[in-house]
Amino acid sequence: MLQTRFTELVQIRYPIVQAGMAGGITTPELVAAVSNAGGLGTIGAGYMAPDDLRTAIRQVKRLTNCPFAVNLFVETETVASDDEIAQMNRYLDQIRAHLGLGPSPKLDQYTQSFADQIQVVLDECVPVFSFTFGIPPRDVIAQLKQRGIVVIGTATTVNEAIELEAAGVDAVVAQGSEAGGHRGTFLSDVSRSLIGTMALVPQVVDHVSVPVIASGGIMDGRGLIACFALGASAVQMGTAFLACPESGAHALYKQRVLNSTEDATEITWAYSGKAARGIRTQFMERMKGYPGNIPPYPVQNALTQDIRRAAAKQNNPEYMSLWAGQGLRLATRRSAAAVIRDTVEQGLVALHQMTSFKR
Amino acid sequence: MLQTRFTELVQIRYPIVQAGMAGGITTPELVAAVSNAGGLGTIGAGYMAPDDLRTAIRQVKRLTNCPFAVNLFVETETVASDDEIAQMNRYLDQIRAHLGLGPSPKLDQYTQSFADQIQVVLDECVPVFSFTFGIPPRDVIAQLKQRGIVVIGTATTVNEAIELEAAGVDAVVAQGSEAGGHRGTFLSDVSRSLIGTMALVPQVVDHVSVPVIASGGIMDGRGLIACFALGASAVQMGTAFLACPESGAHALYKQRVLNSTEDATEITWAYSGKAARGIRTQFMERMKGYPGNIPPYPVQNALTQDIRRAAAKQNNPEYMSLWAGQGLRLATRRSAAAVIRDTVEQGLVALHQMTSFKR
Repeated sequence: MLQTRFTELVQIRYPIVQAGMAGGITTPELVAAVSNAGGLGTIGAGYMAPDDLRTAIRQVKRLTNCPFAVNLFVETETVASDDEIAQMNRYLDQIRAHLGLGPSPKLDQYTQSFADQIQVVLDECVPVFSFTFGIPPRDVIAQLKQRGIVVIGTATTVNEAIELEAAGVDAVVAQGSEAGGHRGTFLSDVSRSLIGTMALVPQVVDHVSVPVIASGGIMDGRGLIACFALGASAVQMGTAFLACPESGAHALYKQRVLNSTEDATEITWAYSGKAARGIRTQFMERMKGYPGNIPPYPVQNALTQDIRRAAAKQNNPEYMSLWAGQGLRLATRRSAAAVIRDTVEQGLVALHQMTSFKR
Repeated sequence: MLQTRFTELVQIRYPIVQAGMAGGITTPELVAAVSNAGGLGTIGAGYMAPDDLRTAIRQVKRLTNCPFAVNLFVETETVASDDEIAQMNRYLDQIRAHLGLGPSPKLDQYTQSFADQIQVVLDECVPVFSFTFGIPPRDVIAQLKQRGIVVIGTATTVNEAIELEAAGVDAVVAQGSEAGGHRGTFLSDVSRSLIGTMALVPQVVDHVSVPVIASGGIMDGRGLIACFALGASAVQMGTAFLACPESGAHALYKQRVLNSTEDATEITWAYSGKAARGIRTQFMERMKGYPGNIPPYPVQNALTQDIRRAAAKQNNPEYMSLWAGQGLRLATRRSAAAVIRDTVEQGLVALHQMTSFKR
């Protein structure tokens, strides 16, 4: 009874997608473990250089014969003047000094080329491609579909879901406001697009005909069955996998995830110039004092990279980005396979209880 | 299979609570219609004078023999200096002028006395008493329970739910961030207590032993069954009842509810000095330009009362408060009995589909 239109579409056993968390979290081991357990593992490749992405894809292919996905960030136009960048760098230099770093390094590029990344996805003919931050060019979607690659877009509002379906995606992730990490919002202000999963999913389901993947605050079998009830064909879980042994998250990041409560996160633009939900840090607090506008993604993301790297090396989580959703009390340290298995089992129990017992 | 610990506790047929929306929305006709249909109707009595509350309770008793609830606002300490009030009134005077009103009227009192209101609840021995904004004094809870009145508190975080259970409530409303109207938050900043329903409910369920009533973004049978899956024993719905013929909401308020989308609302302090979710209005926009701090509830609520009354008389929704949740696309114009009946029927269908069909 866990077979859905989505599990048929991508040929997986259980309707559970591991979110494409970028920044080294989705190791080939994590992705393959999820897929081998019957879910859909996802390489969070937003920040990956094309060659690194190719290597990761091939590693996953060696570790599993099951379908998996690659997730990329759609290119977003950025306007940041040299003055704005210099002003931000002067502010960040105080934080760099706090961490014993020299002044802002010279940057050659702010981000990876989406065109180069997508070429790898096409060349390697990955089973599933998912994206966020917008909609790829029409010809890219056409090429993906020609190769039989399942295409999944990310929506935070009903209108975004409608545009994604019109662009030809095979499924839509409905990203509720509980979700950790970057907001996929691309049609309006993020502040107007923070719709809770409970409200978002049924409204999206009513307005698109493709399968809907619910995301945001789903941590276990209760969330899985709840999203089924709302009309979703699958769930996407990120925070639930963060503290897995296979996850590439920093040990102290995992510790924070395991020790935090539902109210520990907030939406911040401070790390990347794009809105994302993460556990509150000193870096976020210090950036609230910034007198100017934070340069948009990917500029700010590039500017803060040396700080986050140094913080990780120094084991200082207060200056790392600790992306996480609002289900934090439910995070556990289990293997990825156990997360899938327990979610399915608990979901079946929840379903059974609803139809038989009193609650 | 819709019998739950909560339906047993309050002796109702269906686990659906109509939210205690204050400000004239919950007419005796609405409350009685919900209760007669098998749900739990609630008089939203936060702003009601004790005598008016008594009259309303007696009207409801004439219209139904079924259990119903009264909802009150727990008294909150307020500090607003004369200067702050004068500054706000000067700002509001521009809006008053825009509506053809004279300058700020002299106010005798900012709010009703909670002690007087609760005395009516005790005297009339209403079946269920629910509250928000905090926890009533210990002796009040004791008196309510002595009379066999079921007591329900409102939590927006796990810690609030734990404190409510410790104070002796019989059930806890878990108010997710999707919910319309005032936030019940009383232990920390509202900005830290906007947890989506999907994330909040299971975390609250894990930390209290009393039945949990899920609220926020629940609009139909899908939401009902989803909340069951999360472990809730009932749902509370407000927005779903706003446009009912029995609702006392202004005709143009109902129209806005019926014509708005999921992204039409935001959290504002502008109307009452307390955070609440409502459909965006010109009043909210104009108040964003206010240079000072908005006086806290109930002061600001009293200060803006003449404006909201005049706006209602003038049929100008832009200066009325249009409280609503994020499930707006699912709002319909149906009788309250139909909302209850359809929610139950759709819920049973959703449950059946989950256990038999593919989605």
